[in-house]
This record gives sequence, C-alpha cells and structure tokens, in this order.
Amino acid sequence: MNEPLLGAIEAGGTKFVCAVGTPSGTLLEQTRIPTRHPAETMRDVVSFFRERGGELRGLGIGSFGPLDLKPDSPTYGYITSTPKLPWRDFDVVGAIKEAFPVPIGFDTDVNAAALAESRWGAAQGHQNILYVTVGTGIGGGALIDGSLLHGLVHPEMGHIYVPHDRQADPFPGSCPYHGDCLEGLASGGAIAARWGVPPETLPSDHPAFRLEAQYLGVACMTWICMLSPEKIILGGGVMRPEMYPWIRSHAQTLLNGYVDAPQLQAQIGEYIVPPGLGDRAGILGALALAARACGL
Amino acid sequence: MNEPLLGAIEAGGTKFVCAVGTPSGTLLEQTRIPTRHPAETMRDVVSFFRERGGELRGLGIGSFGPLDLKPDSPTYGYITSTPKLPWRDFDVVGAIKEAFPVPIGFDTDVNAAALAESRWGAAQGHQNILYVTVGTGIGGGALIDGSLLHGLVHPEMGHIYVPHDRQADPFPGSCPYHGDCLEGLASGGAIAARWGVPPETLPSDHPAFRLEAQYLGVACMTWICMLSPEKIILGGGVMRPEMYPWIRSHAQTLLNGYVDAPQLQAQIGEYIVPPGLGDRAGILGALALAARACGL
Repeated sequence: MNEPLLGAIEAGGTKFVCAVGTPSGTLLEQTRIPTRHPAETMRDVVSFFRERGGELRGLGIGSFGPLDLKPDSPTYGYITSTPKLPWRDFDVVGAIKEAFPVPIGFDTDVNAAALAESRWGAAQGHQNILYVTVGTGIGGGALIDGSLLHGLVHPEMGHIYVPHDRQADPFPGSCPYHGDCLEGLASGGAIAARWGVPPETLPSDHPAFRLEAQYLGVACMTWICMLSPEKIILGGGVMRPEMYPWIRSHAQTLLNGYVDAPQLQAQIGEYIVPPGLGDRAGILGALALAARACGL
Repeated sequence: MNEPLLGAIEAGGTKFVCAVGTPSGTLLEQTRIPTRHPAETMRDVVSFFRERGGELRGLGIGSFGPLDLKPDSPTYGYITSTPKLPWRDFDVVGAIKEAFPVPIGFDTDVNAAALAESRWGAAQGHQNILYVTVGTGIGGGALIDGSLLHGLVHPEMGHIYVPHDRQADPFPGSCPYHGDCLEGLASGGAIAARWGVPPETLPSDHPAFRLEAQYLGVACMTWICMLSPEKIILGGGVMRPEMYPWIRSHAQTLLNGYVDAPQLQAQIGEYIVPPGLGDRAGILGALALAARACGL
C-alpha cells in the first residue's frame, strides 16, 4: 500500500518536466521548469524535489542528448556534444546526485518513453519495442529483450536516409548535418520550413500530412528491417490520428509481404500505434527509469 | 585439456558445411554437403556426425532463413517462408534433435557469424556489433548487449531502402520484393544483373565496386543510426579490400560528425572492418551457437 516515492525528470531543450510518482506509474505532483542556463535550471529542479522533504527512494532522468550512457566512462551522466552550448558537457546526473544521493536512472528521452510504454502503455508485455517521437526533431528509442538499446553511443534513428523523390518533393531537407535525412524531410522543423508555417497551424487535410505519412511509412520499413520490433509506437507533436492508417498502409505496401508475421499483415492496426500514455510518455519514462534504478 | 566436442552446421541454400570442433573455436574436421531436398541433405548431415560416434556435447545450426527463433513457438526451429519450396516449413532443429538428443543452438547464419566474430574474430571483447554479409544477397546479424537480435522475427537488414539516384544509376534494382532496396542495388545478384556478368569476374578497378561502396557507405550510416554498434564487420563474396576505405570515407562524409565518437572519426579504420575469421565466420558461428547452447 505504502509505495516508495520516486522522482522523475524529463529534461528537454525548452522545458524540464519534474514529477513525483510511484513505481506503479502514478504521478502525484508535477511541475514545468523552463530550460535556461544549466545552473539556474537545475537549481529550480532541485528545489522542486527538496520541497518533498528528502523522502525519494530514487530518481530518473530522461534527457535530450546526445548523452554519455556508459557506466564506466569518466563522463557518464553528461549531456555531451549538444548544439545547446551552455549544456554541452554538463554533468546532469552529477548535479542531481549531489543533491539527492539515491539511485539515479539515466537515459535518452526516447529510451525512457519506450520503457514507460512497455510498462504501462501501448506495449505492455513486450520486450522488443520501438518508440519514435516526431516533433521538432525525430528520435527513436528501443527496448531489445527488455534492455534499452545503447551500443557505442545511442541510436539516432531520426537521421537515417530515406528515398527522396526530388521531383515530387523538391524541398532539399532541413537537417543542418544531413540535409534530406528523415529528420530533414519529416520533422516538425522540416514541415515548417517546407510549407512556411508551423505544422500545428495546418489542417489535417493539408497535403503535408500525406507526404509525412509517406516518409514515416518508408522509415517504418527500415525500422522493421533493422530491429524487428514487436510493436512500433509513433508519438510526438506532429502526429495526427489520420496519419496512422496511411503510414501502416504505406509500410505494408513497401514490405510487400517479405517479412512473414501476422503483425505486419492483418494485425498491423495494432502494430504501428500511437503512445498509450499520450504526451505523458516522457515523464512516465523518467519515472520508469527511477523505478528500474531502484530494482522496482 | 580434454575439451568437449561440438557439432556445427552452416546451413546454406547451395551447401551445408558441417564440422566438429571445440568450445575454444578449433575446427577438427569439416565437410561440405550440397543442398538438395531436405530429407537427402539431412541424411548426409546426420551421417557425417554419426561417424564421430555420438560423442558430441551439443550442436549449433546457423541457417538461411527466414527462421522461427521463438523458443515458445510450436514451430520453433523451422525454416519458414523461404522461396526454396522444399525447405519451406521444414523443422531443421527437430531433424537434428531426433538424431542427436543434445543441446542445440539455432539462429540465422548472420547472427551466428556475429557471435563468432565477437568470440574469436574481429570484434573480440565487444558486446554490441553488427555483422553484414554481401554475397548473392545481403543480410545482417547483430549482437546487442551480448544477445543476438531477434525481436518479432529477426532483422532483414539487407532490405532497407537507401537513396537511389536513378540518373547516376538507372538500374531499377533486382529485389523481387522491393526492387531497389539495398539488396536490390548492391548484392552480388544486383551487380550481376546491372553489369551482365557475375561480380567475381570483374576487376577491382571496375566502376561496379565504387558504386557498391557508395551504397554500402549509406547503408553503414543507417546501420549506425539504428543500432549504434561498437564495430561493423562487412564480409561476403562481393567484398574486396579496396572497398573498405571507400565505404568508411563515404559513411564518414554522410554522418558529417553528427555522432560524436572517436570510432567514427580517427579510428574508423578499426570500426568498419573485414571479418577476422574470413570465410570461416559462418561455420565458426554455428560452433559458437553450439558452445552457447551448452553454456560454454
């Protein structure tokens, strides 16, 4: 009955969401702190949790990246080569650990969301899932046999190249590193640059969303061929309910029956799905990281 | 000193390589059996191991696919929807298990090769690696945190789409399922179809290999963005020593410094590499599967 309390931090480029919750996924209290200089931001983050009176069993941080996730690295827990210069090489785990000497879970925002969706959301009971957010940028996190995928650094699934028909879509792509990679063609930033208005101002019958579904459909094919996930969860501010059937249909057409699994045929409606946790996947992800760090 | 004996089966579409070896990766005896109807082929496979006198501690099978790798599935151990019709839905593990009631390891040929390379080859000491073979087709296997990647079915990394500039390369692609996916553009079959001669007859200064390196370079970028491997091993009959520097350079140009790791900068020569085990990666992979099935 008396569940331990956990702290959760969803560290984003424009805001930090902080919450106190329980290992069963209940959020009890939550606040938003605008992202400024690290010192100011972290001061406010620590204050929020201090007001809880030091009763936290553990904390979880799901963060924008890139991050150093190697436990044996001297810079473990750092945000590394981010273009947000004040945050470059900032020791975010260290800053929290100094204030709260409890177990701290740390991972990318998208890995955190994947974990939350597998615990409490659309992918309950699955050990191999992909979570992709399509917002200002595009990022993916993956649970593989129950472990969050890291590898050498961590994946950057938004930066894969996809076929780009420049006659049908002459937009050159908006990624400052790769031009017309997936993020350069299909992120919220790409939509804004292509059509001259932010995606949230466009009606759902605007051609932007059909084109978007084409790019995300071919991306789903790549994601399936690479990771063979048991479920793909597509979230983020750009997604609209109308797009899911288009994406499923396009991915299915492209796969052309090659991968033989009912999830990719009759059951595709339950295979490429929106987040079960809606826009709480991020903060619940941080909570899930906290729970896991405590062995809960 | 007296290591147990293990059986290894590299099950391919044209030949089955069978060997007896030890858990430390020594092959003691080996034979090649042409792939015919499953009954004939398996009879010869069983005979080879029977002549060893039933002293095998375990067996490993690295097989062409697709395969059912889910231990709790009623068709675990089957080759499933292969276009090689006599082998479709054939219970390869069952056929071996009936003759040799010992622990049997079973995985894709490319996952097996990845495991062997991590034990004895170019990726020793790494727990996150990618092994890709570029031969008649293109396939990839991955070790993730020390486990072989399966997921819903298993990856089909050769079937990702890559950008295809039809002006520079008007060849429409040879994949019967996907046209100009990576396998359709860059497999040995694609080279043969594009240039009208088998790749092994082409001199290394033929433009086929520069084009090949372009496609494999962009594929490396996708593989890195998706899996963040600690090492990429590129093997298979199409690969030539000249191609590795071209592939590294193209992948590096495309990544454009986005993923910040020395392995992708100064150390890329040790990052995208040929198999340490050469053309023995497949049979040693089957041996590694046998060892693992025995907990060795």
